Amino acid sequence: MRVQTQWKNKPNLELNQPHRLAAIDLGSNSFHLLVANYQEDKLQVVAKVSEKVQLAAGLGCDNTLSEESIQRALSCLAQFAPFVEGIPPEQMRIVGTNTVRSADNSQTLIQQGESLLGHNIEVLSGREEARLIYLGAAHALADVHGKRLIVDIGGGSTEFIVGEDFKPLALESLEMGCVTYTKRFFSDGRIDEKRFRQAEISALSELENIRQQYLYLGWSDPVGTSGTIRTVAAVLAATEGSPSGMIYRDSLYALRKKIIKYKRVDKVAMEGLKADRASVFTGGLAILCAIFEAFDLTHLSCSDGALREGVLYDLVGRNTAEDSRLLTLEILCRRYSIDMRQADNVAASAMVAFDQVRDAWQLTEEHRHYLTWAARLHELGLAVSHSQFQRHGAYLIEYSDLSGFSHTEQQGLAFLVRAHRRKYPLKEFKLLPSSVMQCYARLARLLRLAVVFNHSRPNLPVTDFRLFVEGETLQLQLSKNLVGNVLLLNDLIQERDYQQSAGFGLDIGQHSPATVAEPHSGDGN
Amino acid sequence: MRVQTQWKNKPNLELNQPHRLAAIDLGSNSFHLLVANYQEDKLQVVAKVSEKVQLAAGLGCDNTLSEESIQRALSCLAQFAPFVEGIPPEQMRIVGTNTVRSADNSQTLIQQGESLLGHNIEVLSGREEARLIYLGAAHALADVHGKRLIVDIGGGSTEFIVGEDFKPLALESLEMGCVTYTKRFFSDGRIDEKRFRQAEISALSELENIRQQYLYLGWSDPVGTSGTIRTVAAVLAATEGSPSGMIYRDSLYALRKKIIKYKRVDKVAMEGLKADRASVFTGGLAILCAIFEAFDLTHLSCSDGALREGVLYDLVGRNTAEDSRLLTLEILCRRYSIDMRQADNVAASAMVAFDQVRDAWQLTEEHRHYLTWAARLHELGLAVSHSQFQRHGAYLIEYSDLSGFSHTEQQGLAFLVRAHRRKYPLKEFKLLPSSVMQCYARLARLLRLAVVFNHSRPNLPVTDFRLFVEGETLQLQLSKNLVGNVLLLNDLIQERDYQQSAGFGLDIGQHSPATVAEPHSGDGN
Repeated sequence: MRVQTQWKNKPNLELNQPHRLAAIDLGSNSFHLLVANYQEDKLQVVAKVSEKVQLAAGLGCDNTLSEESIQRALSCLAQFAPFVEGIPPEQMRIVGTNTVRSADNSQTLIQQGESLLGHNIEVLSGREEARLIYLGAAHALADVHGKRLIVDIGGGSTEFIVGEDFKPLALESLEMGCVTYTKRFFSDGRIDEKRFRQAEISALSELENIRQQYLYLGWSDPVGTSGTIRTVAAVLAATEGSPSGMIYRDSLYALRKKIIKYKRVDKVAMEGLKADRASVFTGGLAILCAIFEAFDLTHLSCSDGALREGVLYDLVGRNTAEDSRLLTLEILCRRYSIDMRQADNVAASAMVAFDQVRDAWQLTEEHRHYLTWAARLHELGLAVSHSQFQRHGAYLIEYSDLSGFSHTEQQGLAFLVRAHRRKYPLKEFKLLPSSVMQCYARLARLLRLAVVFNHSRPNLPVTDFRLFVEGETLQLQLSKNLVGNVLLLNDLIQERDYQQSAGFGLDIGQHSPATVAEPHSGDGN
Repeated sequence: MRVQTQWKNKPNLELNQPHRLAAIDLGSNSFHLLVANYQEDKLQVVAKVSEKVQLAAGLGCDNTLSEESIQRALSCLAQFAPFVEGIPPEQMRIVGTNTVRSADNSQTLIQQGESLLGHNIEVLSGREEARLIYLGAAHALADVHGKRLIVDIGGGSTEFIVGEDFKPLALESLEMGCVTYTKRFFSDGRIDEKRFRQAEISALSELENIRQQYLYLGWSDPVGTSGTIRTVAAVLAATEGSPSGMIYRDSLYALRKKIIKYKRVDKVAMEGLKADRASVFTGGLAILCAIFEAFDLTHLSCSDGALREGVLYDLVGRNTAEDSRLLTLEILCRRYSIDMRQADNVAASAMVAFDQVRDAWQLTEEHRHYLTWAARLHELGLAVSHSQFQRHGAYLIEYSDLSGFSHTEQQGLAFLVRAHRRKYPLKEFKLLPSSVMQCYARLARLLRLAVVFNHSRPNLPVTDFRLFVEGETLQLQLSKNLVGNVLLLNDLIQERDYQQSAGFGLDIGQHSPATVAEPHSGDGN
């Protein structure tokens, strides 16, 4: 198993012990909290809370969240906070989806939310959201065999996954959701056949992007998850006597007719439909009808597993060799033909540097992973062009669909790659979330030094140096051997100037014999 | 030969006829003009003029060209203008290299130069410059066999190529040139051992990026081209009695000592060294000494062929199936796994649209190539991510080393890909050179329509439409068949809104039976 050899993580958790795990999903319509105990491959739910924050409804034409909607979100997170208090950071994840992803001012929400919960909030890309939904649904459907289609209509986006067992075969996220479609097609509150059809046609047009590919893959069992779909099933069960958790086409179309007869969004009221769901039900129903039409479905069954369950199962995987990020990194290295000897040498030097400053700079095991990964990927952009390859690598890391990574994580990794050579990129640095700026600045400086040490592409990594920390100033002591290397000294002096221009001190000297230690071997490569 | 089938060009030239071809090279130190007659695989020089414009010397700390240096450049181009008058655009190219590439205000020079010469000026990337230098040198060395290293020290960059026959095996361009190094290391006019060594160390540090790879490839014959190297050979022949066109290491190091003894840049005067070369000779010599040191050369022979010759040979190839751009496009399609059926369908619809408006909009055969190529590449960015893939594709096209394309051409192609879906990208549009804005705006609109027509990814391209032009307004007439397609109409109405927001008119209607013509088959796919 090459993947595991290459990208091995030191597990954060002792998996035989029971653990409390938590996930919070900042969805476009609802926020969800899930706390569970994990032991022996099973999740046992401790707490499960949902609240219809309707974040997407607070998104104005200027693409910013209203102050009111941010307050709704924060007061919900304040309610969630006691549930996650005391859970260690490596045992929980808080993720934002479509609306958090697309609003121009979501950093405001994220920063305040982070200080409320004492934990980082990550933004997920649409495809990563789809992957995690599938993971959650696949666990709920573990006994069902054959290929299945999973559909999750959210507040701002709808995810479509075809997969078999735990393996997704196609992952897509389309820009249509129950909140955004209700706002867009029924903004004045009126419902009629024409508007409803217009909403369906718009959804059908989105579906055209994936229809052929999905039909070609095929499935034996179509499954829906989340609020909109489960509400439709509940309404059909209550009003049409449909079997519980099943949506049949005829009943769905009967419901479509009924909705249009209500004529107004605010009049829609049916058994099985809660008041806070009713206001976004019409848009969600139009999307569901379009999905039945595009894929010619006769029925859809409902499943329990969704994003928050997927996040927890992924969290479990992150602490093992099955961390899906490792496979993704391996694929990147292959696709862009990275020179792995050089990548590994830079990683090895970076690890020596990391271990020398780790305590003084209070860096964590997760930081160690990030520095290793950035070192392995730092030459990625060479596949595009030699000129400015640090920019190309950063672009590819930031914008590629990297399975297993949140967009927030990709941004951090992209920054490190962007910063690995030439001028220290202060502009890009200032775009990082403020909570991670200090540690990424430090990691970038370690990576830069590791790159300089290996500039001549040696067979073995350069490790005979010592780093000491005084505040943000690095003191670099070189072995006698390195001090004699004119080209290296020239590069280091240039690097000192680069770091000084960015406000960081770097002192370079030779270490006295007393401090010449055995080269530190690191323990994470 | 799949390449030729896929990307076949309609030749612009009848190759059996003699042609006058011209190249102008706006180098960082010298501008060169070459006019030649081409017949039966041979170039016969008609005119060859060089002038030391020293453009790079006019580049200030703020990275802009001084008004004075722009005037020097324009007065040189004014001298060149009569030589190229009357040569058709497809038979000449004007290319800018390092300084034009990097100066922030080179658009000023380019625009004024274009109106002086009545022809587009293109910017070359460093690697494309290296490729063309190799092409020029390889023709001059056609009788020499075995692998060779070609070195070209320019005013702002130095190109290194290892190749065999006409095939380059490694192409690099390093940021060091005789003008920039003289400015950087001898700015106060003083020469001493320490400064000279500092310049060499800086060059050695640049060379570290390629040294191992080049030594690994190896060569039997190192060859130098262009001003600096040929001047060194001329000086050595005149002062040391070296064989003509040869530089031996011992003589070179003797010259190095001699230069340092002059103590001042403005005192350097030797037989074989013209006054206008003397002022940038010191920096160039330091680079050459570093190259000898890095690659442990014992000698270097000089060759005549350089960038301008390469441009002419490439121009000849462009009009045949050997157009190197076609192979590059083929490689891109494969590397990024483009769905070629869809790409070809969009290209086919685009060609039908192109041919319907070609005359009214005065589009050329070259524009037709560009539209085809953009259509074939429009889904390139899907390999990065589905989200915003038009941006990713444009990024890769703009910044990749695309053999055979100038940076200017890549920018145009990238714009078309960027503009193929969603909002019309006015911001990116305004960054295009003003001379090509109108035609690229038109090509982008044709591509957008072709993409809309094939949104449902049909087996065969959609071609039963008619386009008419009234100024910048397009009138689109659909067949009865297409008018009945609700999803297509929905997309077209959306597209009409997009085009209107960008200031372009698009009228959509059904064509009357009288105008229903046979679907136009196009003739360039």
